[in-house]
Amino acid sequence: MTDVALAERDGGTAWRRIADELADAIGRGEYKLGDTLPASVTLAERYGVHRHTVRQAFRHLADQGLVTVSRGRGTQVTAPRLPYPIGRRVSMRSNMGKLGITGTSRMLSAEVVVGEAAACTALKLKTGTPLWCVQGVSMADGVPMGTGMHWLSVERFPDFDRAYRDAAGSITAAFKIYGITDYVRLSTRLTARLADEREAELLEIAPEAAVMISTAVDALPDLTPIHLVSSVFAAERMEMVIEPFGD
Amino acid sequence: MTDVALAERDGGTAWRRIADELADAIGRGEYKLGDTLPASVTLAERYGVHRHTVRQAFRHLADQGLVTVSRGRGTQVTAPRLPYPIGRRVSMRSNMGKLGITGTSRMLSAEVVVGEAAACTALKLKTGTPLWCVQGVSMADGVPMGTGMHWLSVERFPDFDRAYRDAAGSITAAFKIYGITDYVRLSTRLTARLADEREAELLEIAPEAAVMISTAVDALPDLTPIHLVSSVFAAERMEMVIEPFGD
Repeated sequence: MTDVALAERDGGTAWRRIADELADAIGRGEYKLGDTLPASVTLAERYGVHRHTVRQAFRHLADQGLVTVSRGRGTQVTAPRLPYPIGRRVSMRSNMGKLGITGTSRMLSAEVVVGEAAACTALKLKTGTPLWCVQGVSMADGVPMGTGMHWLSVERFPDFDRAYRDAAGSITAAFKIYGITDYVRLSTRLTARLADEREAELLEIAPEAAVMISTAVDALPDLTPIHLVSSVFAAERMEMVIEPFGD
Repeated sequence: MTDVALAERDGGTAWRRIADELADAIGRGEYKLGDTLPASVTLAERYGVHRHTVRQAFRHLADQGLVTVSRGRGTQVTAPRLPYPIGRRVSMRSNMGKLGITGTSRMLSAEVVVGEAAACTALKLKTGTPLWCVQGVSMADGVPMGTGMHWLSVERFPDFDRAYRDAAGSITAAFKIYGITDYVRLSTRLTARLADEREAELLEIAPEAAVMISTAVDALPDLTPIHLVSSVFAAERMEMVIEPFGD
């Protein structure tokens, strides 16, 4: 064991023991879904440790998806995060179906805009090409999961606002209206930031909660890009799963 | 155009115009790396819009990686996020090398622990198997990008603390010491949350800034898992890139 290890050992062991005990208590049903765990100061006193050590235990439980830590509301026992597989095929709704969860979506707005450089480049169109900019929100069993801004060529997808609404907010179903029965996920870029007021309201999360930001391009099977979507997901409810060998 | 579109249209157009103008100003060098953009109230007055509209423009620029929005410090022009490809092969250092960035890491702590169920299951070991728990931090050109907690079998990797240190914090180089010259990324799970105090200090980000949480398993080419790593990345500096057709 190294010097560093010896120096960090006690703090290291303490948070892990607290996390294990809390995880066990959740497992036994002592704390149920929606329950708030004791405050960090209370637990720090009980275990005779610094409250930072208790908070580290909370973070560990949060990373395992057992609790959600938020300012003001404390540390609550939560449902496990919804796994969202990212591979060559991405259909949020069919994925939820496999888990016995009902996926729904609704359109928030639809407008035609002059395509800006970033969007047009991703879609391999000339800057300035008219694009649909359609916003929707997706729910899992009625709980908001994410909101997406979809960009598509107006020429390729005339009346897309109507198609998307007729398809009840399912991109896969909307594509079928245009005869597109198969499409693939070309690329996904993922990062995170804090939610703004509007996103927090829409996703029913605390203002300034963490959101995952995904920018993805879907393409026809011949890899022609047809759909750019920039999504904001409630990070406390979702995790992206990438399994390169699972295809 | 739908009713919803008409209702949302003006707000929609306004934030996009403001975002475009600010992006252009950044492109022209009017605002340079590290500069702070005017406050949302100032710009709201200048454009005759609600400050929420300006904030939406800021978020859009942030999602494009042009600025970082943080409470207290305002909206700063930032370097683009470092792309971190997630596929079958993952080596942070070789990826950075391709971008002309110097990747370095250092060990923060190393200890042997009794393997908890989650870690042992991921590594296909019996719960209670002795595991290395090694923490490191990774930098890109000296800027902290992420901190990782690595879990490995003590039996397979005796003296891993020394190997990891001798390998200057490179997992790839440490593996070579054990004769492992090739390994693959089996799975990656990604979510996000707010940074805790210690992580914020370590990563030199604002307390409560968004961090990306990655849990990944590496395996030998025969898919035997050998390494579990749970990482915390500064979301404002990194984006994960998944390109299933790029392998």
